Amino acid sequence: MLYMIGLGLAYSTDITVRGLEAVRKCKKVFLEGYTSILMAADKESLEQLYGKEVIIADRELVESGSEKILEDAKDDDVAFLVVGDVFGATTHTDLVIRARELGVKVECIHNVSVMNAVGACGLQLYKFGQAVSIVFFTDNWRPDSFYDKIMENRKIGLHTLLLLDIKVKEPDFKELMKGHLVYEPPRYMSVAQCCQELLEVEEKRKQGAYTPDTPCVSVSRLGAADQAFNAATLKQLSEYDAGKPLHSVIMLGHQVHDLELEYLLEYANDKEAFKAAVRKDQEKR
Amino acid sequence: MLYMIGLGLAYSTDITVRGLEAVRKCKKVFLEGYTSILMAADKESLEQLYGKEVIIADRELVESGSEKILEDAKDDDVAFLVVGDVFGATTHTDLVIRARELGVKVECIHNVSVMNAVGACGLQLYKFGQAVSIVFFTDNWRPDSFYDKIMENRKIGLHTLLLLDIKVKEPDFKELMKGHLVYEPPRYMSVAQCCQELLEVEEKRKQGAYTPDTPCVSVSRLGAADQAFNAATLKQLSEYDAGKPLHSVIMLGHQVHDLELEYLLEYANDKEAFKAAVRKDQEKR
Repeated sequence: MLYMIGLGLAYSTDITVRGLEAVRKCKKVFLEGYTSILMAADKESLEQLYGKEVIIADRELVESGSEKILEDAKDDDVAFLVVGDVFGATTHTDLVIRARELGVKVECIHNVSVMNAVGACGLQLYKFGQAVSIVFFTDNWRPDSFYDKIMENRKIGLHTLLLLDIKVKEPDFKELMKGHLVYEPPRYMSVAQCCQELLEVEEKRKQGAYTPDTPCVSVSRLGAADQAFNAATLKQLSEYDAGKPLHSVIMLGHQVHDLELEYLLEYANDKEAFKAAVRKDQEKR
Repeated sequence: MLYMIGLGLAYSTDITVRGLEAVRKCKKVFLEGYTSILMAADKESLEQLYGKEVIIADRELVESGSEKILEDAKDDDVAFLVVGDVFGATTHTDLVIRARELGVKVECIHNVSVMNAVGACGLQLYKFGQAVSIVFFTDNWRPDSFYDKIMENRKIGLHTLLLLDIKVKEPDFKELMKGHLVYEPPRYMSVAQCCQELLEVEEKRKQGAYTPDTPCVSVSRLGAADQAFNAATLKQLSEYDAGKPLHSVIMLGHQVHDLELEYLLEYANDKEAFKAAVRKDQEKR
């Protein structure tokens, strides 16, 4: 049996009781280690809780070497641990498809994902449109397809959750060219960086999907003890230090309910200005 | 401290380890008992796991009598348990606002929600638009605002998660008129009933948000051992018995990726027909 188990967002103890019971009976335990990180736990604290070794599975192992994971799961119980919930990334769906092909049984034990935990800021989950990924711009790769998706959401008044890029174990291409496999230090996109990219693309596209005054929410360390929100305009957040990673950003839609606004104002440094930004955004619809 | 703790979807052991630790140190434990149910646990099994009494909080207690919950939380630790995740319903957001007003500290311990667990059917979460609630039609109340929301999602090719109505503890109005407070037996909307309502509204509105041939997924008992999916057309699901509650429905958008389709076909009784329905739906965009 292959147990696909969500670990939640921050602590080793964010695993469910049922998930922990499953891990403890597994012969091998893999932790998917390249699409996200647990903010308040590491390999050692997980191993201590589980009472067994945790094998970090990098992209190569999961995407090209998955038969190593699945072979054991034919005869024994194997756990594949994923930060957040199990189906946050296509790579995990793909693993299940390959398990099926090999006749390996799969059981999923779910957990919270950033996709539903963002409800903690007071915005209602059913008022979110499609979630959007924001990747690190490079000198010659500045993809802006997120812009159209945000525009689609905003046109119908919906909020947009922006999921920020994470580079956990990326080969250093300059070193690779010289024949050395060296990994870059981990990088996590910040709220400010995300908002700067958004401003740059609006500057270029000029289709009014949003403006520097569009109300947004900075989300830091969602689910950890030092979780923090900041409700401000896009421009303000492009200059804001949201602290330690992980970060996300929410761009509001004009369908903001009074109860949502009341809750959000708790997180605005300048409540009157934020309220005014929301009202102004609502007028444009 | 008020601990708002998500319980997940089915089993008593779907609570997180951290959630369980918090419950066990609380003086009082309330379970919100009117917006959803745990599919494979009851008051007794929860009490056994927690080692303490669980007080079922009905709508009246949470919405009108919340000071009873919050008063204890001023000086002692109190748990407020919610099926799924903490912020699935506005009523819980409202409770946090009232806690703040009374100066009661709040800590949230998240869990999976149907909103992210639906990823288990193979559809990608970032391809979902706004989620929509479908309520029981009555003789003189047949609200169809869901239709516009589905149309908004479908126009831009996104999937729609339909959350089906639950009536857990509703007063019987006929008895109430006679002066007796009697509760109706619990009712859970089925996949078939939801799809019949959808067909009725398309019949009336005729704006082509969807057709009887639009591909959908029936979701039963998501997160429980007898979880099941069925990929079929809206018309087929309007006649389908999806078994024991709880149910949800997903209506597909035209942005179906090949990997999503491959995964879904596993759940189609007639794979060729389902594939054809998806292709036909994609042509209309």
